[in-house]
Amino acid sequence: MDPVLRIELALEEALDSARGPGCPPGLRQAMHYAVFPGGARVRPRLCLAVAWACGDGDPASSDAAAAAIELLHCASLVHDDLPCFDDSPTRRGRPSVHSAFGERLAVLTGDALIVLAFEILGRRISASPRATGEVMATIAASVGAPTGICAGQAWECETEIDLAEYHRAKTGALFIAAAVAGAQSVGAPCGPWRLVGERLGEAYQVADDLGDATGLRQDLGKPIGLDGAKGRPNAAIQLGVLGAVHRLKDLVASAVEAVPACPGAPQLRALIAAESQRILPAELARLAA
Amino acid sequence: MDPVLRIELALEEALDSARGPGCPPGLRQAMHYAVFPGGARVRPRLCLAVAWACGDGDPASSDAAAAAIELLHCASLVHDDLPCFDDSPTRRGRPSVHSAFGERLAVLTGDALIVLAFEILGRRISASPRATGEVMATIAASVGAPTGICAGQAWECETEIDLAEYHRAKTGALFIAAAVAGAQSVGAPCGPWRLVGERLGEAYQVADDLGDATGLRQDLGKPIGLDGAKGRPNAAIQLGVLGAVHRLKDLVASAVEAVPACPGAPQLRALIAAESQRILPAELARLAA
Repeated sequence: MDPVLRIELALEEALDSARGPGCPPGLRQAMHYAVFPGGARVRPRLCLAVAWACGDGDPASSDAAAAAIELLHCASLVHDDLPCFDDSPTRRGRPSVHSAFGERLAVLTGDALIVLAFEILGRRISASPRATGEVMATIAASVGAPTGICAGQAWECETEIDLAEYHRAKTGALFIAAAVAGAQSVGAPCGPWRLVGERLGEAYQVADDLGDATGLRQDLGKPIGLDGAKGRPNAAIQLGVLGAVHRLKDLVASAVEAVPACPGAPQLRALIAAESQRILPAELARLAA
Repeated sequence: MDPVLRIELALEEALDSARGPGCPPGLRQAMHYAVFPGGARVRPRLCLAVAWACGDGDPASSDAAAAAIELLHCASLVHDDLPCFDDSPTRRGRPSVHSAFGERLAVLTGDALIVLAFEILGRRISASPRATGEVMATIAASVGAPTGICAGQAWECETEIDLAEYHRAKTGALFIAAAVAGAQSVGAPCGPWRLVGERLGEAYQVADDLGDATGLRQDLGKPIGLDGAKGRPNAAIQLGVLGAVHRLKDLVASAVEAVPACPGAPQLRALIAAESQRILPAELARLAA
């Protein structure tokens, strides 16, 4: 089955279970709104692509890992948009969850999506205890403390910010988890995939920074120029636009190189190269040609 | 080992892992502040008491279940106190987390504690896959949607509130989970424990309502009269103080009766009776004598 379809089905199934009888109507709607329609589903696609490249031996566990990762990503966006953080009125081109449903439901939606992510992983324990244990440890570490998304976001509350830790925790951690959990979910060695996820995470961060700084990526569906306005670290401001484009290309090349020998290695390398063209607008790619 | 000590040690160990190298200092402090010093640790004590009554066959799994339940309870209090919900300046007799650390760290602390709860449960998968799968499903259902704490809190955002669902989800669910997970963690049949947890959860809710309405329980360490001021359901307002005291006594009696035959049943029944005296101030107990 097409990976994009697998992801949407796994997410629909997860959401259905959380929005069953007894659910308050507002929470039911807000949870669905936070997850559908999605963005590019980059992290779960990476997870499934790695699982597929490793032989796709346990697709139900890979689907659960991919869906959990996307649910946690969506939860982090909902909380990130809250008035006390980015105070973002829009997300993916429409009102953010707190704009549409109020701040209280936005807090609860994020909380309920975090719980749901672990709930669907937990359902795989009886069928694949070892893989599920590894996947759960990987994913929990990538979203919690001391070095997951919560920690990354918490660096924004410090007066002295450790930039490397900030980026690694806020964006990198979930990319690394996506690649590593993809391999773990099918029982494959996961060591080499860490670097693939790390480099891709950095590449997406640079692409995001370029989008924020240049306004050339309309598909982000969120306000631009926020980093500069909020004094947040941004690669396009630090390296210049041309420097950032070169950096992005280097990161993708190094991710491609880091793909280890596995049944689907050639296809995965081609997929990463193609994806890098999607995230870098043609205008910017020409700059660095 | 004394159950109170077991709980504190399990919580300290969990927190230590989450607050390791790389953790932003503010988040590190706020997470500890949210969990220590604790309140009465009622839910994890119930969990360990049931596990003990069932023979305490797998103490490490019971400890993980008890600690996860308390972490999730603490997380719900942190988010519940936020300005968009109760806007409570104090909790357990000192500044609430958002008052002490700011709203952003309060949101992140709650999120990180939720993740940590599932992370420590996940660590038991390899040793006890079956029990962990059951415990995780029970606990996730009690805190998420459609009928866990998040859903209970979300009823406060509805114009028409289903009172029974509201109480069951907001308070009852985690008590039921504590009793049921206690049995599951040691591989005991869990069916009969549901009613014990449900009745005790209702009893604590009535005790809490009495505390809010009468101000007689100083140990709550939070502002009183909030329910009346916010128009929230409160048993002491609905049934009168005397009626609520009778209701509490009936609920405890019915919890005692619901304890099934198990190795430690007599001791557990005595423990529940003693606990009911702790939560009902002597002035109120005399009223209903």
